[in-house]
Amino acid sequence: MEPIIYMDHAATTSTHPEVLRAMEPYFYDRYANPSGIYKIARENREEVWKSKEIIAHTLHTTPECIYFTAGGSESDNWALKATAWTYKNRGKHIITTKIEHHGILNTTKYLETFGFDVTYLDVDEYGFVDLKKLERAIRQDTILISIMFANNEIGTIEPIEQIGRIAHRHHVLFHTDAVQVYGQLPIDVNAMHIDMLSVSGHKLNGPKGIGFLYIREGLDIGNFIHGGAQENGRRAGTENVPGIIGLAKAAQIAHRNMKQNIEKERKLRDYMIHRLLNEIPYTRLNGHRIKRLPNNINIS
Amino acid sequence: MEPIIYMDHAATTSTHPEVLRAMEPYFYDRYANPSGIYKIARENREEVWKSKEIIAHTLHTTPECIYFTAGGSESDNWALKATAWTYKNRGKHIITTKIEHHGILNTTKYLETFGFDVTYLDVDEYGFVDLKKLERAIRQDTILISIMFANNEIGTIEPIEQIGRIAHRHHVLFHTDAVQVYGQLPIDVNAMHIDMLSVSGHKLNGPKGIGFLYIREGLDIGNFIHGGAQENGRRAGTENVPGIIGLAKAAQIAHRNMKQNIEKERKLRDYMIHRLLNEIPYTRLNGHRIKRLPNNINIS
Repeated sequence: MEPIIYMDHAATTSTHPEVLRAMEPYFYDRYANPSGIYKIARENREEVWKSKEIIAHTLHTTPECIYFTAGGSESDNWALKATAWTYKNRGKHIITTKIEHHGILNTTKYLETFGFDVTYLDVDEYGFVDLKKLERAIRQDTILISIMFANNEIGTIEPIEQIGRIAHRHHVLFHTDAVQVYGQLPIDVNAMHIDMLSVSGHKLNGPKGIGFLYIREGLDIGNFIHGGAQENGRRAGTENVPGIIGLAKAAQIAHRNMKQNIEKERKLRDYMIHRLLNEIPYTRLNGHRIKRLPNNINIS
Repeated sequence: MEPIIYMDHAATTSTHPEVLRAMEPYFYDRYANPSGIYKIARENREEVWKSKEIIAHTLHTTPECIYFTAGGSESDNWALKATAWTYKNRGKHIITTKIEHHGILNTTKYLETFGFDVTYLDVDEYGFVDLKKLERAIRQDTILISIMFANNEIGTIEPIEQIGRIAHRHHVLFHTDAVQVYGQLPIDVNAMHIDMLSVSGHKLNGPKGIGFLYIREGLDIGNFIHGGAQENGRRAGTENVPGIIGLAKAAQIAHRNMKQNIEKERKLRDYMIHRLLNEIPYTRLNGHRIKRLPNNINIS
C-alpha cells in the first residue's frame, strides 16, 4: 500500500495494536458465552463486568450504568425510541437540533410517523445551540432533549453542562450523542446532568461493531433489542466479548494521557488551521476557533 | 488452562483460526469506513459486498438480500418489529411457537403491548409444529409467521419448506430464526419459501457481534436501526468490517465440506446417543432421534 496521510479520523480510526492484542485471547481460548454457568463462561462474565468498571471510571459513574451495544447508531436508536415508547403517556414532544448525526435525525423522523412531535433547534454560525431558545422550546409534554456533545463535521462543542441543567430544571430527560467526544475530552455524566450518552468504539481506536449506552442509575427507558437476559436484562444478544474487551482497552488508552494528548492535538490543530488559512487563498474555517474538538479541522 | 471438553457449541463456538486471520488486516491497515469516497474506503465497500456475495451464494440468493446486523437477536427484532409496524394496517396477528428463542418470544411479548395479537403454537413430544394447527391458526389479519428452523436446545428440525408453502398459500410473510442451522445444514431460501432468515456469526466459528438478516428481494419491512445510509439505507451504523469479513469466511468454511461434515457429525452424535442411553441408567433422549441437528444431543 502507498503511504497515505489519513485525515478522516472523525469517520473511523484504526484499531490500536494494544486493543487487538487484548481482544485476541477471546476469539480462541476464552470464547465461552458469558451467559453459561460453567467456569470459562463465568470468567468471561467477570471480564465483561471489569470492562464496564473501566469505562464507568472514565465517566465518573458506576458499571451498572454501562450497557454494551453494537455502536453509536444502536445506542442513539435505543435512547430515543425506548424513551419515546416508555414515556409516551407523559408526553410526545422531543427537542433536538438540526445538526445532529443521522442516527438521531432519522430516528426522530421515524418517531414522527408515530405521532411524536419533534422540535429541531437552529444553531448559530458556529454551530452552537442557543440556550434561551432551548429553554423556550420546552413544553409541558416534552419528555426528552437530545443534543450532540460535539458536532461530527465542524467539531463545535455544545454547552452540554448548561443544557443538562436546563433539562433537569424542567424535569426533562437529557440524552447526548458523545460519539465524537468520548476518548477525546473528559466527561463527567453527573456533573454534566447527562441521563443517557451514546458512544461508538471505532472512533477512539477501538474495534468497529461495539459501543455503549450510558443510562443513569434508576432510569427506566425500556429495551430496544428484546430477547435474552444479557446486560442485566436490558439488551439481548450474546455479548461481543472480544469487542467489549477491545473497547475497554481503547477507553483505557484514550484516558491514559488525555490531558497531554489534548494539548498536543490542540497545538497541531491550531498550527494547521493557521497555515491553511494564511497560505491558501480563499480558505475559511467552519465551526468555532476555540470551542471545537481538539482533533477537528473543517475548512472550506 | 486445564484441558476441557467443550460441549456447548449451541451456545457459542470459538473463532476459526482462518477467520481471525482474514479479519486481522481490517483492524489495522484496512480500517477505512466503507462509507468514505476515497480509495481505501471504496475498497472496503467492495470487500463488504464480496462478503455478501459469499453468503448469498450459500443461501442460493443474491447479495442484495443480505443485511449485516450485530447478531441473531438484532436480526430477530428487526424481522418481527419492522414487519409488525410496516404491515399493522393490514393486520395485527402474528403466529409463532412456544419453543422459540427468547429473541422471538420476548419481542412478540413486546409487540403485544402495542395491540398485536400473537398465537403461540404448541409442539408435539418431539418439538414439531403441527402443520394442520398452523394452517388453522392463520386468519384474515395474520401478517407474519415466525418459526425457528431448528430448536436451540433439543435440536428438532421443523418442516420449514412446508411451513413456508403454507404461509405463502395464505399470502402471509414467513420468517425463520436459523441461528442454529446456518452453517450446519444446507438452506435454499427460495425453495423453502423463506421471506426472512436470521443468522448469528458466532454459532458457526465466526466472530461474536455480527450476524445478518436475509430479506427476500422486493420485500419492504422497514428499518429497525435508523440513521446513516449503510446497508443500502436499511440498517444504520458504520459497517463492522472485520466482523463482516470474518462471518463471510466462517460461512465459506462451514459450506466447504458441509456434506461430509454432516455425515461425520451424525455418526458421532448417534454413537454418543447410543452409548449414553445404553450405558447410563434412566437416561432419556429429548427431541427426535433422526430429525435433529447433526451436532445436537440433549439427554435427561
